[in-house]
Amino acid sequence: MDDETARLYAELWAHVEPESSRRLLLAALDAFADRGFEAATTRDISRRAGMSPAAVYVHYRSKVEMLGEIMRIGHESVLESARTAMDERDGPSERTAAFVSAFSSWHARFSTLGQVTAHELRALPPERFGEILSLRQATERLVADELRAGAAGGELHVDDLQGTVRAIMSLGVDSARWYTPQRGGDPESIGRLHADLVLRMLR
Amino acid sequence: MDDETARLYAELWAHVEPESSRRLLLAALDAFADRGFEAATTRDISRRAGMSPAAVYVHYRSKVEMLGEIMRIGHESVLESARTAMDERDGPSERTAAFVSAFSSWHARFSTLGQVTAHELRALPPERFGEILSLRQATERLVADELRAGAAGGELHVDDLQGTVRAIMSLGVDSARWYTPQRGGDPESIGRLHADLVLRMLR
Repeated sequence: MDDETARLYAELWAHVEPESSRRLLLAALDAFADRGFEAATTRDISRRAGMSPAAVYVHYRSKVEMLGEIMRIGHESVLESARTAMDERDGPSERTAAFVSAFSSWHARFSTLGQVTAHELRALPPERFGEILSLRQATERLVADELRAGAAGGELHVDDLQGTVRAIMSLGVDSARWYTPQRGGDPESIGRLHADLVLRMLR
Repeated sequence: MDDETARLYAELWAHVEPESSRRLLLAALDAFADRGFEAATTRDISRRAGMSPAAVYVHYRSKVEMLGEIMRIGHESVLESARTAMDERDGPSERTAAFVSAFSSWHARFSTLGQVTAHELRALPPERFGEILSLRQATERLVADELRAGAAGGELHVDDLQGTVRAIMSLGVDSARWYTPQRGGDPESIGRLHADLVLRMLR
């Protein structure tokens, strides 16, 4: 992880207090990404955080609770990042491009977090699953609304709205799987490439 | 899993002999998809196969060996499926569309296998990793060659060859994550949709 990425991860977690809770969540994220949620143990998480296994339970009831918090932080961050990028632009094409660019570059930048948020959903208990699903749907709606508006105005060509939305999400989500700075350049360039490919696809 | 998918899975594994080895590999695939490679135990795999834990070692030395076999079968299948589809078509555009359609519909059809092949690569020991990486690269080369030929002939517009190849792979690989017959229609329709989106992106 380079300095800039480390700084952005720290920023994402800055509101988690006290500092030991924050340290545990980051250690849990590492453990989940490394071994998968099922295989990661609270012992492993506490070790990565430099704390005793018992200390974990002072802050979180279970590793599922830690997963839920990580999921919420991740999903809120990507939603916020897409919204902010879109707010600066006008018109369906421009706003779709802003979404794609923000969504894909987020998944490249926060690839560890992006892998966990995409692949450990089923480990959540029903009430947390519902909360996270709402955030995912809100994110999808941001781009679906633009595609719908762009198609209605004749500016974008959309044959299959749901299928196109899924394809756009796939480009971003899968970036978290393959991206490394060595392979893909900087996260922003992934975002720009995908925005360009998607606009070509829709015109 | 519907009857047709079950039949295709059986076909994919038909050459694994004896039958108990085949049953173990399918049980291992289920366990890896369900719990992740790290968390799945040989005890869990043998139980799913209806065999004793000791019986596993008659057929495979370790769960890593089972993962290696699953990976090889999966990667050979997707490569073969893309090759066969492309052989029936002429010209870079048609052959690119054939690749995308075969690659994406394979990942929707064999979504359990597709998730394991995409996400458990790092669990392989170096020598098996190399073997699987060659298969992945051969698959990528199939479409990269068409994009290059299409760009050279002026038939396809490709600004960033490697980035475009990755985007095409992402559409397919990520289908294994989100696809269910309830969500996406039949696997062939996912393939057709992606082929259409990619051709629009390249023209």
